[in-house]
Amino acid sequence: MDATSRVEADSLGEVTLPADVYYGVHTARALRNFAVTGSAIAQYPQLITALAAVKEAAARANRDLGRLDRRRADAIIAACGEIGAGALVDQFPIDPVQGGAGTSTNMNANEVIANRALELLGFERGAYDELDPLTHVNLGQSTNDVYPTAIKVAIVTNLRTLDAALGELSAAFAAKAGEFADVIKMGRTQLQDAVPMTLGQEFGTYSLMLEEDRLRLREGADLLLESNLGGTAIGTGLNGHPDYSALACDYLARITGEQIVPASNPVEATQDCGAFVQVSGILKRVAVKLSKTCNDLRLTSSGPSTGLGEINLPPVQAGSSMMPGKVNPVIPELVNQVAFEVIGNDLTVTLAAEAGQLQLNAFEPIITYSLLRSTSHLTAAVNALARLCVPGITANRTRLEDGVRNSVGIVTALAPLIGYRACAALAKESLGTGIPIRDLVIAQGILDPGTLDELLTPARLTGGAVSQSEFVIR
Amino acid sequence: MDATSRVEADSLGEVTLPADVYYGVHTARALRNFAVTGSAIAQYPQLITALAAVKEAAARANRDLGRLDRRRADAIIAACGEIGAGALVDQFPIDPVQGGAGTSTNMNANEVIANRALELLGFERGAYDELDPLTHVNLGQSTNDVYPTAIKVAIVTNLRTLDAALGELSAAFAAKAGEFADVIKMGRTQLQDAVPMTLGQEFGTYSLMLEEDRLRLREGADLLLESNLGGTAIGTGLNGHPDYSALACDYLARITGEQIVPASNPVEATQDCGAFVQVSGILKRVAVKLSKTCNDLRLTSSGPSTGLGEINLPPVQAGSSMMPGKVNPVIPELVNQVAFEVIGNDLTVTLAAEAGQLQLNAFEPIITYSLLRSTSHLTAAVNALARLCVPGITANRTRLEDGVRNSVGIVTALAPLIGYRACAALAKESLGTGIPIRDLVIAQGILDPGTLDELLTPARLTGGAVSQSEFVIR
Amino acid sequence: MDATSRVEADSLGEVTLPADVYYGVHTARALRNFAVTGSAIAQYPQLITALAAVKEAAARANRDLGRLDRRRADAIIAACGEIGAGALVDQFPIDPVQGGAGTSTNMNANEVIANRALELLGFERGAYDELDPLTHVNLGQSTNDVYPTAIKVAIVTNLRTLDAALGELSAAFAAKAGEFADVIKMGRTQLQDAVPMTLGQEFGTYSLMLEEDRLRLREGADLLLESNLGGTAIGTGLNGHPDYSALACDYLARITGEQIVPASNPVEATQDCGAFVQVSGILKRVAVKLSKTCNDLRLTSSGPSTGLGEINLPPVQAGSSMMPGKVNPVIPELVNQVAFEVIGNDLTVTLAAEAGQLQLNAFEPIITYSLLRSTSHLTAAVNALARLCVPGITANRTRLEDGVRNSVGIVTALAPLIGYRACAALAKESLGTGIPIRDLVIAQGILDPGTLDELLTPARLTGGAVSQSEFVIR
Amino acid sequence: MDATSRVEADSLGEVTLPADVYYGVHTARALRNFAVTGSAIAQYPQLITALAAVKEAAARANRDLGRLDRRRADAIIAACGEIGAGALVDQFPIDPVQGGAGTSTNMNANEVIANRALELLGFERGAYDELDPLTHVNLGQSTNDVYPTAIKVAIVTNLRTLDAALGELSAAFAAKAGEFADVIKMGRTQLQDAVPMTLGQEFGTYSLMLEEDRLRLREGADLLLESNLGGTAIGTGLNGHPDYSALACDYLARITGEQIVPASNPVEATQDCGAFVQVSGILKRVAVKLSKTCNDLRLTSSGPSTGLGEINLPPVQAGSSMMPGKVNPVIPELVNQVAFEVIGNDLTVTLAAEAGQLQLNAFEPIITYSLLRSTSHLTAAVNALARLCVPGITANRTRLEDGVRNSVGIVTALAPLIGYRACAALAKESLGTGIPIRDLVIAQGILDPGTLDELLTPARLTGGAVSQSEFVIR
Repeated sequence: MDATSRVEADSLGEVTLPADVYYGVHTARALRNFAVTGSAIAQYPQLITALAAVKEAAARANRDLGRLDRRRADAIIAACGEIGAGALVDQFPIDPVQGGAGTSTNMNANEVIANRALELLGFERGAYDELDPLTHVNLGQSTNDVYPTAIKVAIVTNLRTLDAALGELSAAFAAKAGEFADVIKMGRTQLQDAVPMTLGQEFGTYSLMLEEDRLRLREGADLLLESNLGGTAIGTGLNGHPDYSALACDYLARITGEQIVPASNPVEATQDCGAFVQVSGILKRVAVKLSKTCNDLRLTSSGPSTGLGEINLPPVQAGSSMMPGKVNPVIPELVNQVAFEVIGNDLTVTLAAEAGQLQLNAFEPIITYSLLRSTSHLTAAVNALARLCVPGITANRTRLEDGVRNSVGIVTALAPLIGYRACAALAKESLGTGIPIRDLVIAQGILDPGTLDELLTPARLTGGAVSQSEFVIR
Repeated sequence: MDATSRVEADSLGEVTLPADVYYGVHTARALRNFAVTGSAIAQYPQLITALAAVKEAAARANRDLGRLDRRRADAIIAACGEIGAGALVDQFPIDPVQGGAGTSTNMNANEVIANRALELLGFERGAYDELDPLTHVNLGQSTNDVYPTAIKVAIVTNLRTLDAALGELSAAFAAKAGEFADVIKMGRTQLQDAVPMTLGQEFGTYSLMLEEDRLRLREGADLLLESNLGGTAIGTGLNGHPDYSALACDYLARITGEQIVPASNPVEATQDCGAFVQVSGILKRVAVKLSKTCNDLRLTSSGPSTGLGEINLPPVQAGSSMMPGKVNPVIPELVNQVAFEVIGNDLTVTLAAEAGQLQLNAFEPIITYSLLRSTSHLTAAVNALARLCVPGITANRTRLEDGVRNSVGIVTALAPLIGYRACAALAKESLGTGIPIRDLVIAQGILDPGTLDELLTPARLTGGAVSQSEFVIR
Repeated sequence: MDATSRVEADSLGEVTLPADVYYGVHTARALRNFAVTGSAIAQYPQLITALAAVKEAAARANRDLGRLDRRRADAIIAACGEIGAGALVDQFPIDPVQGGAGTSTNMNANEVIANRALELLGFERGAYDELDPLTHVNLGQSTNDVYPTAIKVAIVTNLRTLDAALGELSAAFAAKAGEFADVIKMGRTQLQDAVPMTLGQEFGTYSLMLEEDRLRLREGADLLLESNLGGTAIGTGLNGHPDYSALACDYLARITGEQIVPASNPVEATQDCGAFVQVSGILKRVAVKLSKTCNDLRLTSSGPSTGLGEINLPPVQAGSSMMPGKVNPVIPELVNQVAFEVIGNDLTVTLAAEAGQLQLNAFEPIITYSLLRSTSHLTAAVNALARLCVPGITANRTRLEDGVRNSVGIVTALAPLIGYRACAALAKESLGTGIPIRDLVIAQGILDPGTLDELLTPARLTGGAVSQSEFVIR
Repeated sequence: MDATSRVEADSLGEVTLPADVYYGVHTARALRNFAVTGSAIAQYPQLITALAAVKEAAARANRDLGRLDRRRADAIIAACGEIGAGALVDQFPIDPVQGGAGTSTNMNANEVIANRALELLGFERGAYDELDPLTHVNLGQSTNDVYPTAIKVAIVTNLRTLDAALGELSAAFAAKAGEFADVIKMGRTQLQDAVPMTLGQEFGTYSLMLEEDRLRLREGADLLLESNLGGTAIGTGLNGHPDYSALACDYLARITGEQIVPASNPVEATQDCGAFVQVSGILKRVAVKLSKTCNDLRLTSSGPSTGLGEINLPPVQAGSSMMPGKVNPVIPELVNQVAFEVIGNDLTVTLAAEAGQLQLNAFEPIITYSLLRSTSHLTAAVNALARLCVPGITANRTRLEDGVRNSVGIVTALAPLIGYRACAALAKESLGTGIPIRDLVIAQGILDPGTLDELLTPARLTGGAVSQSEFVIR
């Protein structure tokens, strides 16, 4: 060993490391064992921050309980603070997809924190006799309580960001709903003309669906705020201090700003992945509805000549390498694809959760990987939709109004006065001859123009307000 | 037409029906168009009951609003009451998997109710001039508000039954947890010996996981209690009465005993399948955890000679057509398979929800079919587990206790006193020589037998209670 | 016991059965243990036929090998023949979803065959001393070789039926392709006008996609023709005769008409579910493409006023309980939903296959249930599309031709002569002013009408035939 | 603009680019529009190489057909050659998950190739009057034929690599099968003792399953070798040369070494995603079986004290941050998780394929992203298993042999001689008393030791070879 390297050992033997790395032997082994995705946990800063928060909370609790001396505790807490703020992120090089139930991620954190704390105390990296990654940084902890807690915090962080992004998108749709409040159009069921509505109602629905999703997301996040810290290996709390769990959770809540509480039964909490499955299911729900909304946007903006042509999406890039002038709905298409990815990820989470055995689920790393990606990809896609697409949408009012005027669908509005059967005959004649319903009704003297106009006012057609007396069935 | 048949007509022409059927032309067309599953909605009595409840609520509301005369209203209400109680269920022959967004199911209900009401009024079946399936039974309604409301009620009914079944299973596990409270065993993480616990803790976890699932199920059911009744075709309420929605929901709540409320925005509620996706996701969660539990039961009962052999499942049938004496864990295997089916059904629900377009989701029939089957199959599987398997489980106490005594895993309990490194060395030696940890510690004078016994008492090993002073890191 | 009942016993004790049932104690236990779906294997006649074929093949092989005397063998063979032809199907009452890896289904077959053979030999049902379900009917067999072989045969039977149904649908589309060969329309990519094509090309594509699927289906079926008969419990062939496997497979091939061959490695074949997963994946492929095709049919038939209105689907039932004259695409919607079910079933199959352990997959019953339903439901849906929908489709020729004439998309056809940039300018002007491309080109003197007409002949637009000299880039 | 930047324009306006980038305006727009995954197509070098190969093939074909002059053609071909060999990979910065059906990826390639070709010809980057990304590099092409062809080539490249990795793993298992050929053990069905087999048979099965998967993978790859090059926008070949397709495919085959052929019907080929769905299904099959194999490895290596303890996996890292001496099956756990990811990705591919509309599937980017990741992650996981785990596996022979000796499962081997019933009684007695079957048989004089030994020789037990005469049923 020279100045550019140092040697560390574990039960398998010695490993030579570059002298300047903060990680140690356990991280080095993991780097060799896990090389699947080409990415590193460093690319998930919310996870690194969450790990630092958990380690800091543990150190504070151990210090308060007298199990960790103040000098070492302070150094560990200071190191965690730096890392939680973004320092040394490049010292977390291991693949997020890993065997070992997150042990390597926990070890990576223990090692980096220990070496940074050693530095702060004036020692060399690797001087573990002074401050040890396992004995001191991991004191009273197990991967099996640290890792699940940290990933929950990281996922909650991402859920908060997604919630905000969905709020921005919902507001963008709501603004359009206001703008289009007086634009009448044909509503459609099963892609067939149904009855009239306003374009504002259509966009208002997009907004409202997102608001409901946000409520569900927050309920899902709450399920993740239960921590098994203090349960150690399998939740029984072996080797732990009876006051540790409450104390550590309290510190963690203060550090993260989230209402983290101790699990009522840590044995159950250590093996149960139900909350991950449910949160993933809620993300799937969000994805399904975003995808449906983008399908609608692509459909109603189809054309320009031979499509529905009801609305126009703002062009954000040329559409074709071959067809001049073509513009495509690339942003909604992006959202659709991210939705498909999220739904696929939900299946991965489901499979991993089902595969848990006995006192632990060893597959939380792929659950974490899937949920962190689902949340961050959804956020990016939602931001693109909210910023690059929705605000620039315009309506083709004339086409929409003509559609209502010429559609047989408005005949339904006459049914309470002239009956289902007469309406069906009118509809058939209108479709056969191409003569609008309105013209037929007047020509045949079925209703006088005044009554007809009243029945077909946009407000009545789209709001359903009718007086009670009109519709008594005799 | 003779006495054994009657003729009905719709816009496509005439259809001859057996005289004694209560359904009519629309049902007859659906029978021809949809013949996929070989089953009928009659096999989902909770759906028929729910349809009758919705139709009764609508009739009561229309009567109160003066839109439906009392004589017809009373006949319709009486017919709905009979059907809701199980009468005429064989008059619902159409396939639950159907195109048309549930229109055929709604039509089937309209026709059967109308013909039964006609009978009650003293008329012939088919005398629709007196009381018409569409004009009177379907008054102020659309398939698009009736069908979603009815399927939600039906699914909630099933969720209540499933909740009770899960409660029974949870209680069965809890009873075993009590019975096994003093049986010590090795806990395992990643299928490797970890640290001790009690068999009672293991079974208590199974119980607790189910209780958490029940809470989630109830929250999911609540999401289904919002109805778009009164929204008619697309939620705008065209042709509807302004007071109808509140009144109909109120009646429906009284009939069903569920807290059904009007949707705040019926346009959104008519097209949104988010609640179905979320409930399906919760069922998936239940399935995942039941499957994990059954995997554990099958694993810990594996043997009898070359398996883990920790517990015994009660035999319920001979295990093999070839191997004498073989007994298999058939009930847990049943549950696993139903769980796989439920997870598959969740995907079907997801796909159907995503495929909704514009103002309606036309694919609610397959959503309904999937959720009614998921809930009822889960209930049956859970009942089998709760009644035929769990109560008869016994523990192989000696084997479990020997396992703890001989496992190197107990070395972890010594770590706070003698350190991680010394423990690792002991573990290695024990594994290499086959000498139990306890014997090595005494032979090498590491700890005196008294201290050792104290450290290794079952209560300390499985409960983690330690005094504060023992574990100061110096 | 009186004349109306008989008693049978197994290792768990005695069971009283109705005297007239052909099944026995093992079936009775299964009836009690498995009551999930409310259905019976009797509803899957192809499975009963396949079981009878396997049992007959086994009896013939055992007879030839001298292990089963001719008298009993003949009785068994005769009984199998009857059952294979449809007799006694009601004697198979057990739920297809069952624990025990198919043991109960095998036992059910053994018992019914034994009792029918006893009858043929002149004995009472239950006289197992004369001819025993296990000793004689199941001779040299195990559930673990009988059941997988039988379900493969049953699934292949269904695949053949599905193949034929797809052929009929493909022919229906091909007929329409011929009928619409001269109908020009705008092709669309990303729902935006692209370049022209014929409606015949569109329908020809639907046909060709199905033909490709049929090839894949047949390849998939071939994967199921490998049998582990003779492998007994785990494929090692314990207690088996060395010539049995080849002989039994040969008989089975003759009985079924399928090219069934012995597995090269029965140990592998006994536990491997790869073929089921792949066949399920191919069914998913078929479902995906059928769904896409039906999406297209629903989209291009949307309207009648405010949709694309390119084609008309034949009405098969009234569309709405509320909106007079509305007709919906119920048959394509049916197909979509069955496709969603098949994709969900594929997930169930995947989960069950993954859950196999060691020498057997215990979850083949749910695999069977899923695949039998996927195949039969797909067949029914495809038949509905081929018979009730596609033949009646008509084209709105004028609308389609107008669409091409007025679309800016045809500008692409001019690009080789006037360049991408000039085309883009024309496209922009046409969209802004509403003046068709053709009129702009002539008005601006860009091309003479003759050249323009030549460039825009339907044949050139849709067939891409151009002379080599025209398009040299200089 | 100064020396450090250049300006490019498209239909949306001007964009300023760094002077030294090889990409242009279209890539710049895509960078802004698509920022989801934090990754770039540059990280998928097989895709860049495939794009270069397609562009080179197109240039060669256009040159031969006289549509592209030799000077420009040669420059383009040279640029493609460099890029195909790995140059300029950092000039492909756009996100693989993108809207626009791959247009941005195609544009990126056109721009980089054009600018590199311009350099080779002695011009500045951006001098598109001399050589234009669209006019020359994209000549006779459309994203809709270039992109699908390139992604198929890229996926096939990855499938070849995966095939080789699976071959290596299969060989590793086969080597162990040889090493363990004489190690007898109990086979298990449904986790219950069944009949004996050798550990070699168990490992041989792992090997054989992989070999079957490899055959399926190759068949899947063949499905991707059909190209729609020359179909241009929607497959009709508008603006294309009649000889282009064959010529371009021929060149592409030569460049890639794969047997690429023109699609028989390019209209169908342009919109059909069936091959992707099927290949993804085959990858799912591979994943399912790898996961099952790793489940078995984890199960049979469970312990060390209280598990099955049949085999030992080589330790590759310390197992626990808390439990001294614990070693975990981290490599099989890694493979399980990648399998879960691949199964999730298959769902994403399925969803994207189903969402295709009319003449194109706009969602091929997410299909590509999913399949490139599934293949490369599987390859990495398989390599880890083949190199870090399987070769170091050892067997606990004594434990395995004791298991056979003490198991009641061997009683099945006696059934042909003493009957099912007697065997069942022996099994019951052995389980109740703990006395091994062998001892009971001898003590009770059922068989003499010589006959017994012969029946229980490992060769007979595991190979099933029996003489014909032994087993006549009388």
